[in-house]
Parts: sequence; structure tokens; C-alpha cells
Amino acid sequence: MVVVMAPGATDEDIARVVERVEAVGGEAFVSKGLTRTIIGLVGDIDSFHHLNLRTLAGVADVHRISDPYKLVSRQHHPDRSTVWVDGVPIGPQTFTFMAGPCAVESSEQTLEAAQMAKAAGATILRGGAFKPRTSPYAFQGLGVRGLEILAEVGAATGLPIVTEVVDARDVAVVAEHADMLQIGTRNAQNFGLLQAAGDAGKPVLLKRGFSSTIEEWLMAAEYVAQRGNLDIVLCERGIRTFEPATRNTLDISAVPVVQAASHLPIIVDPSHAAGRRELVVPLSRAAIGVGADGIIVDVHPHPEDALCDGPQALLGSDLRELAAAVRTMPGLLGRADASRLTKVLA
Amino acid sequence: MVVVMAPGATDEDIARVVERVEAVGGEAFVSKGLTRTIIGLVGDIDSFHHLNLRTLAGVADVHRISDPYKLVSRQHHPDRSTVWVDGVPIGPQTFTFMAGPCAVESSEQTLEAAQMAKAAGATILRGGAFKPRTSPYAFQGLGVRGLEILAEVGAATGLPIVTEVVDARDVAVVAEHADMLQIGTRNAQNFGLLQAAGDAGKPVLLKRGFSSTIEEWLMAAEYVAQRGNLDIVLCERGIRTFEPATRNTLDISAVPVVQAASHLPIIVDPSHAAGRRELVVPLSRAAIGVGADGIIVDVHPHPEDALCDGPQALLGSDLRELAAAVRTMPGLLGRADASRLTKVLA
Amino acid sequence: MVVVMAPGATDEDIARVVERVEAVGGEAFVSKGLTRTIIGLVGDIDSFHHLNLRTLAGVADVHRISDPYKLVSRQHHPDRSTVWVDGVPIGPQTFTFMAGPCAVESSEQTLEAAQMAKAAGATILRGGAFKPRTSPYAFQGLGVRGLEILAEVGAATGLPIVTEVVDARDVAVVAEHADMLQIGTRNAQNFGLLQAAGDAGKPVLLKRGFSSTIEEWLMAAEYVAQRGNLDIVLCERGIRTFEPATRNTLDISAVPVVQAASHLPIIVDPSHAAGRRELVVPLSRAAIGVGADGIIVDVHPHPEDALCDGPQALLGSDLRELAAAVRTMPGLLGRADASRLTKVLA
Amino acid sequence: MVVVMAPGATDEDIARVVERVEAVGGEAFVSKGLTRTIIGLVGDIDSFHHLNLRTLAGVADVHRISDPYKLVSRQHHPDRSTVWVDGVPIGPQTFTFMAGPCAVESSEQTLEAAQMAKAAGATILRGGAFKPRTSPYAFQGLGVRGLEILAEVGAATGLPIVTEVVDARDVAVVAEHADMLQIGTRNAQNFGLLQAAGDAGKPVLLKRGFSSTIEEWLMAAEYVAQRGNLDIVLCERGIRTFEPATRNTLDISAVPVVQAASHLPIIVDPSHAAGRRELVVPLSRAAIGVGADGIIVDVHPHPEDALCDGPQALLGSDLRELAAAVRTMPGLLGRADASRLTKVLA
Repeated sequence: MVVVMAPGATDEDIARVVERVEAVGGEAFVSKGLTRTIIGLVGDIDSFHHLNLRTLAGVADVHRISDPYKLVSRQHHPDRSTVWVDGVPIGPQTFTFMAGPCAVESSEQTLEAAQMAKAAGATILRGGAFKPRTSPYAFQGLGVRGLEILAEVGAATGLPIVTEVVDARDVAVVAEHADMLQIGTRNAQNFGLLQAAGDAGKPVLLKRGFSSTIEEWLMAAEYVAQRGNLDIVLCERGIRTFEPATRNTLDISAVPVVQAASHLPIIVDPSHAAGRRELVVPLSRAAIGVGADGIIVDVHPHPEDALCDGPQALLGSDLRELAAAVRTMPGLLGRADASRLTKVLA
Repeated sequence: MVVVMAPGATDEDIARVVERVEAVGGEAFVSKGLTRTIIGLVGDIDSFHHLNLRTLAGVADVHRISDPYKLVSRQHHPDRSTVWVDGVPIGPQTFTFMAGPCAVESSEQTLEAAQMAKAAGATILRGGAFKPRTSPYAFQGLGVRGLEILAEVGAATGLPIVTEVVDARDVAVVAEHADMLQIGTRNAQNFGLLQAAGDAGKPVLLKRGFSSTIEEWLMAAEYVAQRGNLDIVLCERGIRTFEPATRNTLDISAVPVVQAASHLPIIVDPSHAAGRRELVVPLSRAAIGVGADGIIVDVHPHPEDALCDGPQALLGSDLRELAAAVRTMPGLLGRADASRLTKVLA
Repeated sequence: MVVVMAPGATDEDIARVVERVEAVGGEAFVSKGLTRTIIGLVGDIDSFHHLNLRTLAGVADVHRISDPYKLVSRQHHPDRSTVWVDGVPIGPQTFTFMAGPCAVESSEQTLEAAQMAKAAGATILRGGAFKPRTSPYAFQGLGVRGLEILAEVGAATGLPIVTEVVDARDVAVVAEHADMLQIGTRNAQNFGLLQAAGDAGKPVLLKRGFSSTIEEWLMAAEYVAQRGNLDIVLCERGIRTFEPATRNTLDISAVPVVQAASHLPIIVDPSHAAGRRELVVPLSRAAIGVGADGIIVDVHPHPEDALCDGPQALLGSDLRELAAAVRTMPGLLGRADASRLTKVLA
Repeated sequence: MVVVMAPGATDEDIARVVERVEAVGGEAFVSKGLTRTIIGLVGDIDSFHHLNLRTLAGVADVHRISDPYKLVSRQHHPDRSTVWVDGVPIGPQTFTFMAGPCAVESSEQTLEAAQMAKAAGATILRGGAFKPRTSPYAFQGLGVRGLEILAEVGAATGLPIVTEVVDARDVAVVAEHADMLQIGTRNAQNFGLLQAAGDAGKPVLLKRGFSSTIEEWLMAAEYVAQRGNLDIVLCERGIRTFEPATRNTLDISAVPVVQAASHLPIIVDPSHAAGRRELVVPLSRAAIGVGADGIIVDVHPHPEDALCDGPQALLGSDLRELAAAVRTMPGLLGRADASRLTKVLA
């Protein structure tokens, strides 16, 4: 950390900062300039946080210079990680395609959507049983019945399942049925849920909060990691901005930024970012181009009857176009198709 | 709702919309223009949501025109409500001053802060026992021991207690010790927690999510209200914007906007919005000026030792200046000092 | 400035930074820590900017610690300034009320609006002759004819005139007719216009860009000041955020933040921030409460016929309520009514 | 347009709306519902704007349903346009690579950068002679001398030139030297400059304002188009959001959104969006993937000496990697390399 003293700071002000830092075992390097003094701190940064240096007389500003996250940081773990979901890899060597219905509505609809997804090349099935909805009057999901349907459809199609858990009290039952737990955008800072997911023994798909900075998002991942679970896949799904043309603004730059800062895999959700079907294919191609480790996409056999987010679900020609992109583009950028790698490994 | 058809929509497209609306018991009024047709819908808006009209052929756009929240709306409840917290009113006739430490650290610190708050005119004591922190390595609060301290200090000073609950599993124990449950900004869409708070039988202080629109915030209140609890006080505490000079941007306009849309009381938290002590007094005066029903402010006897948010805690001359503003300004705008009204009522 | 070296920086990397800094006459203080080295720079900050230290090998980050603006900064000019507009003060001792129609439409409408404004206590008349409009198909203002009307109405009512200039080529003609030049929100970084306004010999009302940070805004003021014109009044008028309930989000905190950073006066425009008439009075009261040096408000004798921003123009009972607030509230906060002070001085 | 009446609107309120609409030659279709009445308007939308319907008694809201831009809209011009810059096409059939130094500093540096750009496959040379800078103390560009250097280097390398014009008074001299005029992000709503550029007889590269919505951006293009110049290329260069990891947030979704709404070509500037060299190649690949019509990238022979934006300029291996992507990827998505097409046509 770096402490910047105000122009009028006295020698006593400076001495007080040094004293506090040394009192917790740190070292303080004082550089006196013509108009300002700068103090560099070396030692355990956590102990410095409790000093409240910013509130001391004569202190103008305090800058932090180390990553605030540790377990998920790439600083001490330079190789990017691969997370395995029931035999399917997500990581730097592959491009993983996940698809399925936004919400599980029935066995038939879920099976049909899963078959569409699989035919298009998806290797992991997504689907919502517990739905967080802005309105209490909107469809809230089928709950445990939805989990059972997902598990059945997963078994029937041979696809591992990822589904959202919205409440710490539901983690056990979701972990029982699913191969991967999704934490949604609205729970980006629901720390009890993050910790419970960290304890559940299953990989976690951690969506970015629609208003989380990248640093806050990695701190949320750190909450999961701190419980001993490093099987975390990050998912960029758009942030809240002033632009109304899309539901959220897909922060495509987050992909290389995260890949430089963290060893965790990162995928993209173009469906929820855009909220508009016609943008899903171009944004999926952008995700492949930028170097994402995969995508997760809404598909629905009958979007006009969907109980949730019908306008963004793919079908028909759009899905075929996406399937073609997923088959051809990642290879050009040096990635194997996750479905083929899976087969080789199996 | 209003359905706007695309320029090239056919008569069949239009008929399909009408048919769907009538199938769920609604009425559809078709207005054919030169280039576009507009269809106005009358009936139960919830049933229309399930129709996914936006996905039908020929439909260009769908506009909603009714409030999506009902119980907290002012449409059917024109008089603004007063919420009572253990005998202290929060509502349109009073100006209520809540204060206390950001985090409960010890009996002594909490008692000292409560005495500072009371001496300054505060009639409700705030204090955090469960702290939601961005970093898993930051101080997370004293938990149940913190609740006990708060209850003791509340009893000793005669001040009702408001404290945050961050996990649905903790609602019962928090409700046992506190007079009012606070839902924090990071849990603005933690729907299980909102429902649990609605079931707890205590008034709820619902902070705005730092990225919630006013409409989403009122929908969150609707989740609490739907459980039969209308004792909800809203709290504007700043939103996330591009401006780095303050921690968040206090959306002062939200106060009159909410007062026009909802009957619920609304207060302002200038401490967390600004994150800087020197802004708390001017922003508190702005809150009084704009017509807020109260404020909630961080105070700490020794901010330089605070385990949480020390840089924004008031003390000494700032607190005296705030006390003077709270004593003198609301009366000019036609409000009684809540502390006086409380005494009269007691 | 502070240069933070990367963990793996070599001694040569460090030596190269020091060498470059010394080559331009600066001093570099090196603090070697366990994992990182920090270099504090002392000297002429402008010369350091050209060094591009951030691009050197081994450099992780560079922090700037001095204000980037100089002439408008309060660092070397601790007393807050008062700007006089044809005998009317705007500054820390007064509260100045400016009002008038958004756009000048005719002599009659402008005179009527000016009389409304004056009757309500306004001491400066605002009105737009050149209108920057998002659409080329919207009313663009009366141009020079509008300036003539303003000047006539100003003379008839005895009110100084402030009006917007949108193009550097119009500065001369606007300065000929107006007592104060307004730079609007869309021209916040139109540097040629800022410089031309700085050369014009009239006070400047500099609105904040709706997406300018406070620092960028003060840098824009620095462009005016650099031409020798320090008669600058800043105007907070709302920033662009995700909240759709208001046209922009009034950043009320900007008032005390600017007052701490700059000696220039700052006023608030509640009409353009909100875009809704019913919010103008509460936001004006908030502006007084927060300590603004004045407000500028749209009034119109017949808002339903206004060619520009009719929905936000005040009239009738709202204007009377505002007049009462402007008469009574500033005095409580230690400010004289600018209209009275003007009379005393005259 | 659709007028939504308030629940309590009277028959007279409704009649007044109808009367006003008919008075300007429009038709009004009234749909009376149980709780609300909706009025659909058909006719000349511009005439409706002057009615200020929103301010009439009983009116709750007014929705616009037509595109506010006309000449640049795709509604009446379904085929996407190609703009030619001195023989180089930018449009749906090609992928055009523009590169060059952020600022022209000298003949040598500009020539060296142009040769780097050309060797990497660029077919248009970018370079700044007039630089809009946030600080008046930063390098402002070489002005006319910079234009001369650009023209010489363009002639020497055979590359057409695009350069920014920041002031309407400079349009003539810039148009004399350059093949394409760039309007920068800070001038997104400098309407006088947009009109002057529209009059200049050269193609225009219109960058998105960093806080412009897509609709506002297309309205800015409409200002250029209205002067009879439809040779406009749009450039997405990042928007201002809360995320600090990148200088701006590249709104990659804007590419397909604009392509659906307007017939104008659209390219991407990854250098200014990211502000970080290591993100330029991944973001360029994302731009190709999403279907952009080209990119514009900063290159500099010696970034560590650059007078402007050195940290984002490409060189060496990064530039070779970008060249490879530009050569191979667009073809897979059905586009010709603009450089090859140019040769064929020449």
C-alpha cells in the first residue's frame, strides 16, 4: 500500500503513520518531496486495513497495490485452470457449449429442449428450477419437481446438468440433483449462498452481478474458493449501463481482463445479456473471437409459449447457425471442441 | 398494455393477438393506422404476461402501462403511510433521525455511540451485527453476540434498534433481538430473504439496491408486502454510477419520485452514499430539504479505530451541526421532530 | 506521482525509471519492499506525463496525486469566489435564483416568463436562443432574433441575461447581447468553444457534461480559466445513469465535492436534471439544503405550448412555492438573498 | 404515437387530445378500457411533437413508436450501404483494417507507423493532427502541420487518410488534406460540427459519444446526412460505465443492433475502448466475430515515447497476431479482405 500525505502534513503526522504500521509488524518507507510526503508500506496487507490510515491527521489518500483476492488470483497460480463437470472440461484448451431452456416447465419441454441442445453440439444442459424473478407475481419455477425433471432429462440424454440455486437453504437439494450449481446475477453478493455453494462439493458457475466490477466478482469467487472449492467457472452476462437497446451491455472485454487476473475459466451468456434472439448468434461469435472458454445459451422448442424469457430463446435456423460457428471457429483459435475432447477422454 | 404491430403486420397477425388476449379473458381494441396498427389491452395484466405477445409474428413492441407493484403502490392507497418502530413514527408528519455505529464492535463502543446518537437527537439506534463484506478477509461482524449487545444498549438508552439481516436463516434470531430488520443494498433481490423478513412480524427497513431502478426497488418491497407485512420503510443510499468522487451517487430525486409512486415512508442514508464524513451534513440537509421522512447516519466514538467504514462516521462538531439541522429545518417544512412526537404519544 | 513496480521488476527496470525521471529534472525516491518496489516522484508533474512511465518494463502502475487543474483549484486559492453578473453576485454569501423559459419563442412569451421569474424573486433571466437538440428535426431556437428579444426583455425588466452559446463561431454575437454565456452539457468537452468563451470577456455558466466526472468538469473550467477568465460559475444538472424515472440523476453530492475542490461558485439546475415539473420544487429545496450558491429553473407562461421542454417548466402554485423556499430557506443556512444583497450594493 | 390517459381522465380530457391531434391533420383512435383509455395517433409525427400532449390534463404518458431518424434508418433503405474512401470500401462485403498513430508527432514517426500499418494489412491510415484533450496542459496535436505530414505520408504509402476534426472552423482545412473526416467521441453532440462535416464533401467517420445511446448516435448521423452527405461510417469505441478495469466498456452488441437499425457501415475501435494494449487483439477478434465492417487500431513505432495514448498502441508481435486474424477470420464469415477487394477494383 501507498500512503499519500497531504501538503501540510507535519512530521508528527508522518511519525504517527509509521508508528501504526510498525505496530502491526509492517515496514514503512518515507519519501519526503518538495510538496508532499509518500509512505510505502510493506508487510501483511490485511493488518494494514484495520489501521484506518485514511482517517489519520495529515493523510490525503491511501492506494492499495496488491490483488485483494488470493486463491482465485493468477499471481500465484499462473496456469489457467480447467474445471470438469461430470467429465466435460471447461478451460483454456476447449470451447464448451452449454444450452437449455431458461426455465424447466415440463418433462416434455425440457426433453425437447435438451435434444435440440445436444443436436446443436451442446455438452452441458442448463435449465432453471428455482427462478429469481423481479416480480413476486411472475412464474417462480417448479422447484424440486423441476430438479427431478432436469435429472431425468440429463440421464436420458447423457448431458450433465447445471441449474441455479437462489437460497442457501436449497443448496443441499440442488447439489443432490445437479452436476454444477449456478449462482445467478442477483446473488452476486449473497455471501451466505456463496459460502454454502463452496461447501456443496460440486462445481460452481458464478455469474457476474449485473453491477459488479470485475474485482468484486473475483472477490465473490474468493468466497466460494475460501471453503475449499476451486472448481469455479465465471460467466460474463452483461452489466447495467445507460443503453436501453439491449437488456444489459455485454462486457466482452471482461473475458481477457479476467483471464489475465485469474486462473479460473470464463464463459459468456449472450442470451441474458442481450435479451433479444437476433443478437445471440453474433454475440456468441464475438465470445469465441475474444477467447472465451465457452458459452451458455437459452433454447426453447416453442419460445412463444415460454414462461420465462421467451424473446431470447434460440430455435430453428438461428440454432443451426450457432452450431456451425461453435463447430468451426474455436479450432481456428487453437481450441478443441469440448464435445470431441470429452469423447476422447471417455 | 399496448401492443404495437410492425409496419408489415398482416390481418392474420393482428387476429392472432386479439385471439390470444380474448382467450385469457381480456379485451383487445384494434386501431388501424396508415402505417401501423395499435392494439390496446384491457383486463388482468398478469394473464397477459404469460402470452409472450412480443414473440408473435407481426408484433413490434409491447408497452406496459400499469404499475407492476400493487400493495405498495399509491394508486389504490393515496394517503402516505406511517410506520411505527416500538413507538417511534416514520412517515409524512415527522422527520426521524436514526444513528449508530456501522458495526457493533464491543459493548463499550456501542453504548458510547448510542449515547452520542441520543444526545444528538436520534430516536432509533442503528448498528450492524451481521456485516455483508465484499472481501471474505474483512471483519464480518460479531453475529449473535452483536445482537445481544445491541439489545442491551437499546434497553439502557431507551432507543429502539434497527440492524441488518443478511441471510434468511438468521431472520428469526435477528427478529428476536431487534425492533426493525434492515435488508441491505446487496440483498435487494435476495427474494428468499425478502419473504422471510416479510414473515418475521417486525418492521422492515429496505435499502435500495445500489443498482436497482426505483421500480425494481418497489418490486422488492412488494415481495415483503405480499407476506402480509406492510410496515416497510424505504431507504435511498446511493446508486452506482461512473462518478468516482463519492462511493455511490445519492439519488436525491428518488425521494419525491417514490413518494409519488408509493405510500411507504422513505428515508436517506447519506453516510453510505458518500463514504466521506465531510459530505454527511450537507447531504443530510439536502434530504431534509427534498422532503425525506428521515435519515440514518453512521456515528462512532473513535472513527480511526472503526472496524468498518470509519472514514464516513460522524463525531464531534459535525454531529453537533447535524443535530442542529435536524432540530430546526424539518419544522420549517411542516414536519414535527419525531423525538418530540414520540414523547407526546408516549 | 507514485510508480508501482511489478513483483518481478529487476534492478535495471528500477534504474531506468529513476534515470528517466531525473533526465527531466525530477527526483525519484525508491522504496524496496519484500515483494514490490515503490518509487515516489517529486518535481514538475507535466514533465512526468511525457515519460510514459506506464509503458516501461517492470512498471505495474502509476498513480497521480496532485490536482490536474490549477487555476480553478482551491489548493492555492482557499477562499471561495464570488462571480458578479452585471451587479448580481453568485457566491458563498448569497443564494441566487435564475429563471426563465427554456427557449425564447417570441417577445410576448419571453416578457411574460421574465415577469413571472422576477415576481418569484429571480435576479437573473435565463432563456435559449441557440438550442442544441438531439434531433435535427426539432426546434433549433430563434438564433440572433432570440438574442435581441432577450436583450430587450432584460432591459425592460432590469434582469441580467444568461443564454447558451453552442458554437465558437457564435460567441461574439452572443457576448454582444448577453451578460453571461452558458456552455451547455453537450459541449462539456468542446474545447474550442470553451476557449472562445474564455476570450469573450463575459462571465461563463459552465454546465456539467451529463457524463463528465467532477474532475473532467473542473478540467473544462480550466480551459476557460486558462484564457484569463476566472468569472466561471459551475452548474450541476444531472448525470446519465441507469435510472429511467428521471431524465438524468441529479448528483447533489457534487455541490459539496466541488466546493471543497474548487473556489468557483456552483449552482443547481433541477429542471433539466429531473425533466418533470413536480420534482423541481423538492429538488430546489435540496439544492438550498446542500449549500448550493443558487439555482436555475425553467418557467413558462403556457407550458402546454412550449416548443422545448414544456413538461418541466414551472408555473402558478409551484412557482409560488419555490419563491417561498428561496425567500426563507437560505437565510437559515447563513446566506443572504442575492436579490436583497444586490439592492444593498446598488 | 400512443397516448396513455390517466385512470381518472375525463371525457373532456380525451376530447382535448383528439382535438389537438386533428388540428394538425392527424388521426386519433380512442380505445376506452375499464380503467384506462388509450389513444393511438396516426399522421406526421413531427407535428405531434409540438403538441406537448404530455402536459395536457389527464394524460399519463406518451410513447413514440417510429424511428426518430429517417435518412440513416434501414426502414426505407433495407440494403446495407458501402462507403468508399478514395477507392477503399467499408461495408457489408468486406472487412476494412485502419491503423496508425494516435497523434502525428513528426514525419519520421508517422511514416514509420504508416509502414507498420501497411505491412500488417491496413488499407486506410489514421492519425491525429488536432487532438481533443481533457487537460489544457496536455499535447494538443500539431494542427495544420500534422495534416501536411499525414498527406505526405499518405501519398508516400498509397494509403487514404482519416483524421479528426474538432472544430467547425477547421473543417475546410482538414477536408483539403484528408480523405475522410473523423468526428470524435467528445463531439458526438456538437451539432454545428456535424453539419459542417456534412457540408465538406468527404466521407465521415462518426465515433459514438462515450455516453450516447445508440439512438442518439444515429440522430447525430442524421445531422450529417441531412446536409446531403450519406457517406457516413459509424465507429463503436466504448461507453462510460462503472467498470474501472478498462478505459471504457466496448459495447460489442452495438454492432448488430446498429446493423439492424441503420444501413450505414459500422466499425470498432478496440484501442480507445480498452486503453490497454494487451486487450486490442482479443477485442479485434471479437469485432470480426460479431460481424463488424472493420476496425481502427492505434499503432506506434515507439509506444514508450508516444505523446498520446502510448499504453494502447500496438507493435511487434501483437501487431503480427492482429494481422493474421484480419487476414484469416473475416473470410470464414463471408467477407472479403478490403485490401484484396481494393486491388481487384483498382
